[in-house]
Amino acid sequence: MSTYRRIVLASRPSAEPSPDNFRLETVDTPELQEGEILVRNEYLSLDPYMRGRMSEEKSYAAPQPLDQTMIGGTAGEVIASKNAKFAVGDKVVGALGWAETGVSDGVALRKVDIARVPLSAYLGVAGMPGMTAWYGLNQIMQPKAGETVAVSAASGAVGSVVGQLAKLKGCRVVGIAGGKEKCAYVVDELGFDACVDYKAGNLVADLAAATPNGIDAVFENVGGAGFDAALARMNAFGRIAVCGLIAGYNGEAVAVHNFSSVLTNRLTIRGFIVSEHLEFWAEGLRELAALVAGGQLKYRETIAQDLASAPDAFIGLLKGKNFGKQLVKLT
Amino acid sequence: MSTYRRIVLASRPSAEPSPDNFRLETVDTPELQEGEILVRNEYLSLDPYMRGRMSEEKSYAAPQPLDQTMIGGTAGEVIASKNAKFAVGDKVVGALGWAETGVSDGVALRKVDIARVPLSAYLGVAGMPGMTAWYGLNQIMQPKAGETVAVSAASGAVGSVVGQLAKLKGCRVVGIAGGKEKCAYVVDELGFDACVDYKAGNLVADLAAATPNGIDAVFENVGGAGFDAALARMNAFGRIAVCGLIAGYNGEAVAVHNFSSVLTNRLTIRGFIVSEHLEFWAEGLRELAALVAGGQLKYRETIAQDLASAPDAFIGLLKGKNFGKQLVKLT
Repeated sequence: MSTYRRIVLASRPSAEPSPDNFRLETVDTPELQEGEILVRNEYLSLDPYMRGRMSEEKSYAAPQPLDQTMIGGTAGEVIASKNAKFAVGDKVVGALGWAETGVSDGVALRKVDIARVPLSAYLGVAGMPGMTAWYGLNQIMQPKAGETVAVSAASGAVGSVVGQLAKLKGCRVVGIAGGKEKCAYVVDELGFDACVDYKAGNLVADLAAATPNGIDAVFENVGGAGFDAALARMNAFGRIAVCGLIAGYNGEAVAVHNFSSVLTNRLTIRGFIVSEHLEFWAEGLRELAALVAGGQLKYRETIAQDLASAPDAFIGLLKGKNFGKQLVKLT
Repeated sequence: MSTYRRIVLASRPSAEPSPDNFRLETVDTPELQEGEILVRNEYLSLDPYMRGRMSEEKSYAAPQPLDQTMIGGTAGEVIASKNAKFAVGDKVVGALGWAETGVSDGVALRKVDIARVPLSAYLGVAGMPGMTAWYGLNQIMQPKAGETVAVSAASGAVGSVVGQLAKLKGCRVVGIAGGKEKCAYVVDELGFDACVDYKAGNLVADLAAATPNGIDAVFENVGGAGFDAALARMNAFGRIAVCGLIAGYNGEAVAVHNFSSVLTNRLTIRGFIVSEHLEFWAEGLRELAALVAGGQLKYRETIAQDLASAPDAFIGLLKGKNFGKQLVKLT
């Protein structure tokens, strides 16, 4: 019988996750049942939401169970199929977790065309992170041409797409990112109008300088000081999509100090989880893939090699060590 | 030439307003021009928003100018008219400020019927505060029967209407108010299901006990600890109307600590100013007046006597010393 390697959640972190919260193990490949598909995962997606699942606190999703394969998006190839909809050799995207091999019943598995969009992009710009950007921008922020849009974690898998889509709509787009290199990428490669380096120590003044006409819409991935700085710059009737608050994911107290802006500027703030809005995915993914294929949507990937590197890569992601979409290459 | 008394803003407060921020003075009654109406104000409305206008900080409205009549809603009687739409003896509601007499061009003056609704009620439950409640509840919170609604400053002019309207919709309604007497009124007179006394010192636990099924919609008048306690009790897809953040009106730092609830519960938060939604006023005011006339909407007033008492009454309002709608009786 064949085996494969997987990573399970071994324990829950009390603050920052550490490598010993994870355990690499080898398990038997199960026998395929009627209707099932066996997939060899080529790429594993690492995303900030996984940090939330590692904790037991009440949140929008059930916690990741201990001793089970860590959840996660995957892209790979069908290597055996007892499902008429999938054939050996098909490239597929699913959520088979931190594992070299996965079994799917086909319901949450999606065949993808890699002729013009690389397989890995379906885990990033043309996948869940891209859809997250698309939904937040189009359904919550709804910016008009000429408005100013601010995006935190601007060089990341989600933020980079938010900003580029906003540029395509004719907005002034200002990113917030950590470090000169990321900010240079955001402006020079992605085409944002400006990028504020929060590590430079002048966040409030730098954001004010970069947003001379204030801010009309925010895509918030981080929370903390950057969010407060954005709140202080909001124009009347501004919209804020709250996608992530990574600054507080390890349980630190991250207070919001400029909340009064909600009243004085009559802001609308909405938190969202893109997986709850599946009715938009077909439209959004089609649009994103077309933009990638046409070269209008750029992206960058940080690719760790081998399943065993996933915990360190994930911990690095939470600290902003990645540059663009964080993936693990499994094959 | 006749004269009248008025109160002007003499100086801006640095923290809590004090009586010396105001100045009582006697001025000449102007000669009426064509199209103008002279009104003897019978009631002056005191409202928390006035605190914001006393400051120079950027807000949704221009600051109250120094040495000018303090802004404010008024109800009174036409005593002279050069405007065909208004006759001597008409009862009218307007915004003629902290003054015994006012001149209007008629544009922002509204004739009211006092046959079934007392004149003073048009400054409260059947006026701007009532409309504030109506708009926040119907346009932002949109509660369904069976949902739990929380209201801060629950015994106040706005909060008391929010809760009663929500009860009419079949919601479970929980108020937050300061002191046993106000809480008893909220439950016994207004018909709320429960009221948490924030002065009792167990705000978080008491609110949790009063909302066994969590909170689906919040009307926020205060901010601070009560708002954080409500955020911690929110259910998925909860809606929060932010009408006031009186806890921070004097410039205290009032941080929001439980903002992560916006993400984990996919909340929508919207700040609003009812005067920006005039398209709803005719419908709302008609509904409110009918409910008052029918005895379905109860209210309480705290009435200070004489214009000279307005500053102290206003300062008391900001400290929660009033009980229900704060008015000044001028005649």
